[in-house]
Amino acid sequence: MIEKTISCRQIYEGKILNLRVDEVLLPNDKTSLREIVEHNGAVAIVAVTDNDKILLVRQYRKAVERVLIEIPAGKLEKEETPYDCAERELIEETGFRANQLKKVMEIITSPGFCTEKIHLFVANNLVVDYLENDEDEFIDLITLDLDEALGKIVSGEIVDSKTIIGLLYYKMYHSAS
Amino acid sequence: MIEKTISCRQIYEGKILNLRVDEVLLPNDKTSLREIVEHNGAVAIVAVTDNDKILLVRQYRKAVERVLIEIPAGKLEKEETPYDCAERELIEETGFRANQLKKVMEIITSPGFCTEKIHLFVANNLVVDYLENDEDEFIDLITLDLDEALGKIVSGEIVDSKTIIGLLYYKMYHSAS
Repeated sequence: MIEKTISCRQIYEGKILNLRVDEVLLPNDKTSLREIVEHNGAVAIVAVTDNDKILLVRQYRKAVERVLIEIPAGKLEKEETPYDCAERELIEETGFRANQLKKVMEIITSPGFCTEKIHLFVANNLVVDYLENDEDEFIDLITLDLDEALGKIVSGEIVDSKTIIGLLYYKMYHSAS
Repeated sequence: MIEKTISCRQIYEGKILNLRVDEVLLPNDKTSLREIVEHNGAVAIVAVTDNDKILLVRQYRKAVERVLIEIPAGKLEKEETPYDCAERELIEETGFRANQLKKVMEIITSPGFCTEKIHLFVANNLVVDYLENDEDEFIDLITLDLDEALGKIVSGEIVDSKTIIGLLYYKMYHSAS
């Protein structure tokens, strides 16, 4: 099944992604091109308060030209561990520090063309830290009951893949209710 | 919250994606760059046999250099409706035609940098059609009980976002068990 790389052409090297086109040898000995978006990976966090509210963020997403509701998330810095990144992004986006932070899953968002892997965490025992957004991030924090948040998946108000996965997974495998 | 586009620079126009870089005006009147992967969208199908097996496909994914287990899926052709695409891709990838095919959700896979939207369908009342793979697709069909498939999410054998969403969503909202 494996596709052997014959040649690589780097098209673009950017701030958050690179693009390359690989020529590959298929199992039938024909060749084909694979357009591949290189991404350094990210984390996402299902953060649950002591009274069972889920922390969510609203932000404008230029790619889809919409304000989306998402769980806190962010890109891995170079050399940063997923755990450190989850701790940092949770504080940056919500102002809360997690005394309990556990990785529960790895997600490949778009394996057809993108290398991105998201490390999903569940955060509990939240304490107020200091809220300091990234300079060019404009984020509203909202809190919802888990079932309210799940309702927004069914109604189509929540459409982001990592957020849908985080909420459904938490409901099925972590929530007491 | 909205980011106004000041200028667009098209970097690449390809077979399955384009890349552009937008200069945007932020709410604080500063400017920033947004790297945006343009993708035409896709469909994915939770296809359930009359004896409650889920159809899944194994295929090599060059971007992540792994064989992944996924629900049947594929890109929208130009002008194609999501419904027609779901019907076509299910036949192409599994050899089954769905007598019942219902859209249940829209998913944005990576809103931070990509326009891709996946239309998620549930397919029932499957009948054998004719199996004809795309020329450069090499796919194994497998069937699993829903709970077996969910076990592969927990174990980390299933990592693809649309597949995780499809299986969890089906379990929570469509499955009788």
